[in-house]
Amino acid sequence: MNQANIGVVGLAVMGSNLARNLASREGNRVAVYNRSEGRTKELLDEHPEANFIASYSYEDFAASIAKPRTAIIMVQAGAATDAVIDSLVKVFEPGDVIIDGGNALFTDTIRREKAVRETGINFVGSGISGGEEGALHGPSIMPGGSAEAWEVIRPILESIAARADDGTPCVTHIGTDGAGHFVKMIHNGIEYADMQLIAEGYDLIRNATSQTPAEIADIFAEWNKGELDSYLIEITAEVLRQVDAETGKPLVDVILDAAGAKGTGSWTVKSGLDTGVPISGIAQAVFARSLSSSLSQRKVAQRLGKQVVEGLPAGADFIEDVRKALYASKIVAYSQGFDVIRIGAKDHEWDINLSEVARIWRAGCIIRAVFLNRITDAYKQDPELELLISAPYFADAIADSELSLRRVVAAASLAGVAVPAFSASLSYLDAIRAERLPAALVQGQRDFFGAHTYKRIDKEGTFHTEWSEDRSETRVD
Amino acid sequence: MNQANIGVVGLAVMGSNLARNLASREGNRVAVYNRSEGRTKELLDEHPEANFIASYSYEDFAASIAKPRTAIIMVQAGAATDAVIDSLVKVFEPGDVIIDGGNALFTDTIRREKAVRETGINFVGSGISGGEEGALHGPSIMPGGSAEAWEVIRPILESIAARADDGTPCVTHIGTDGAGHFVKMIHNGIEYADMQLIAEGYDLIRNATSQTPAEIADIFAEWNKGELDSYLIEITAEVLRQVDAETGKPLVDVILDAAGAKGTGSWTVKSGLDTGVPISGIAQAVFARSLSSSLSQRKVAQRLGKQVVEGLPAGADFIEDVRKALYASKIVAYSQGFDVIRIGAKDHEWDINLSEVARIWRAGCIIRAVFLNRITDAYKQDPELELLISAPYFADAIADSELSLRRVVAAASLAGVAVPAFSASLSYLDAIRAERLPAALVQGQRDFFGAHTYKRIDKEGTFHTEWSEDRSETRVD
Repeated sequence: MNQANIGVVGLAVMGSNLARNLASREGNRVAVYNRSEGRTKELLDEHPEANFIASYSYEDFAASIAKPRTAIIMVQAGAATDAVIDSLVKVFEPGDVIIDGGNALFTDTIRREKAVRETGINFVGSGISGGEEGALHGPSIMPGGSAEAWEVIRPILESIAARADDGTPCVTHIGTDGAGHFVKMIHNGIEYADMQLIAEGYDLIRNATSQTPAEIADIFAEWNKGELDSYLIEITAEVLRQVDAETGKPLVDVILDAAGAKGTGSWTVKSGLDTGVPISGIAQAVFARSLSSSLSQRKVAQRLGKQVVEGLPAGADFIEDVRKALYASKIVAYSQGFDVIRIGAKDHEWDINLSEVARIWRAGCIIRAVFLNRITDAYKQDPELELLISAPYFADAIADSELSLRRVVAAASLAGVAVPAFSASLSYLDAIRAERLPAALVQGQRDFFGAHTYKRIDKEGTFHTEWSEDRSETRVD
Repeated sequence: MNQANIGVVGLAVMGSNLARNLASREGNRVAVYNRSEGRTKELLDEHPEANFIASYSYEDFAASIAKPRTAIIMVQAGAATDAVIDSLVKVFEPGDVIIDGGNALFTDTIRREKAVRETGINFVGSGISGGEEGALHGPSIMPGGSAEAWEVIRPILESIAARADDGTPCVTHIGTDGAGHFVKMIHNGIEYADMQLIAEGYDLIRNATSQTPAEIADIFAEWNKGELDSYLIEITAEVLRQVDAETGKPLVDVILDAAGAKGTGSWTVKSGLDTGVPISGIAQAVFARSLSSSLSQRKVAQRLGKQVVEGLPAGADFIEDVRKALYASKIVAYSQGFDVIRIGAKDHEWDINLSEVARIWRAGCIIRAVFLNRITDAYKQDPELELLISAPYFADAIADSELSLRRVVAAASLAGVAVPAFSASLSYLDAIRAERLPAALVQGQRDFFGAHTYKRIDKEGTFHTEWSEDRSETRVD
């Protein structure tokens, strides 16, 4: 192979790991390009086994790839991505495929796909999850774009994707234009919720017992053998077990408790607002991070005296309650996330197979978890499933765990331990199945001060009460 | 006066009420224009006392106003507003002032102000709150724009604004370009939270006791005599007391429990995300409305069996706990809202006086409440106040009410009554003053799977643990 069958632009950690992954698969030869030459040469020196074809101009890069060309862009989302696309469009030809593998905002992807398509070149916005290790050994890949482009890139993406336990590759054609990045965004939103829920569970056990982080690591390792079995639970045990070499303390006690964020969680909440899907658990997780980073406000807030009603219960029963609370809340977070995908797909006219989305999240990505098999099954059985938590398996799982969630939120509330995501999950469960919500009062208030009208439970129509006059009701439609 | 000193474009309810308010003040003569002539003629017929000068073209409208002209646009936010601005710019002259009194998105106002300023005409984006009644009798007015434009419009806005108990008009110059609409947006976000908190309080009392809505109305009327004294509590009593003429039932039981929304709440949450301010209470209120409107999902969710640990306590103590929980949560909602204004002002380089914002919300607007006097004082005493809940008055108020909030959230959690906004408020209080947050674990996880690095509590720098290698720590900055 004197020519490459795939190119990678952008050789930072994610890009170079993905290039090495590609190069390691039978039948691939990989062209590489990076804005700074030094990084390219470094990669070549470090990994001669990859047999990369290096280029130092976009013209040479294009010439080094067999037609129809495929190139994956792995640079920072935003302006850097636009710049690379512009350069590639100049040297690529109709029928070639440009894949943006970064964490682009899906509306940017919609815009780019439209612009690139006019040149006859295919543009694929693809979510890639799994972090550095996933990029190297097999990520979960979420490509959006035309069906034609998918047929071109399918073999190569399947070759590098993670494999689930059943041997199938964790990649599927998500839908047209921005669908892939939309689904990746929701993946990350769920990840925020999952991490916050785990953090709240850890915090509760830490506050309730005298156990050390290493001992709590054992609890998480044990949980990882059951229905919570997942990558995030697994690495939680690893992080909690880590000892700081310098101080001899648990690393988690030495790390500054201010959580960073790169934006996809915030985008997910905005999509929840735009689609009208109440993704309250994910929202609380995003806000919990920004609150933690408000260091000077947190300092000021220490002035507020803290009063608690009673301490947390300390026994094994409470720890088991926390485990179940975590499971119930996790189901709610996934249900809310899939709901945004379902409604978002309608809004953007994407034909997204939710069962397939769950299937390709079973390995490679950060939120990979055994229970994604159950989500895959639920949407396979009922592709029109309106609410994941109402599927028999999940309804049963919630029935089995909701009392624990109630006890945990109640205990945390009395003990002064913040559980924003646990309590949002419980409120969601209690609100979504309430026969009557006090939203009727809200509608009454809105009609009172703004003549916003209301519907009635007993007949069709839109109504308004003449609050400032004789308080009679008139039908206004 | 053969010429008007002020014009109003758009004569739907809000516009015509504002025009009537203007006309009723000494020294004003009001020019009016509406896209459809019929509405203009109707208004003239109905209100001859107003002595309006009606026009049926923009040219005549401009000619009917004395120079420098001032006109207030009261049409739908969005494209309709742009169309009116375009028309006015054609017939107005440098030095004239165009005020957009609709609920514009503040970024639209920034764009419009910039474009209109280039013509030499002044553009003022002004929030106007108070609903129909406020527009007619005296709203709270939040104008943004240049200091020069403010000097021109100040007398006329002061003439129609609501008056607080101390006699001062509820209007002030908020800041340049989009500042007025930004502050109005946050006003509405706080309104969402306030309404949701009231709804949760009502729901709890309804579930805990056998009291009828009319009896609960008496409770709210009583509350309105104390620290909760506010317009929204007042109208809650009115709405709960209302009997449906057709069925004889309480109206609140006949209204469909699906709450609508017009977008400003959602915008507020997005601003919270953009500024990194955790406005969790407002977010929960916005999501509670969208959840209530998901009628088919709510029906499906009925399948989930509901298990509760124990019923709500039914006595007077619990009702008092609900009152205090409402007060504590309300303080949190205002604190979060003012925080977004504070940070948003920095981000957009607006010089916003938070004490003045609280001052002009004391009358006229929907969230008017006695305790806004205390917010006015708190920011007057300390204009740099970083966190409203840490001001002495509010810290004391929370100290006095937080145990009630704890008991209410715990009881609701065990009883299966959804309290998304109460519990978000409690979690906020517990998180913001926590000495340590489990965000440290989140940072550890992020470093594990994505090499996102972390800070340490004991020294400067940015660090990364080589998780997939020898687990040593390296400083990366």
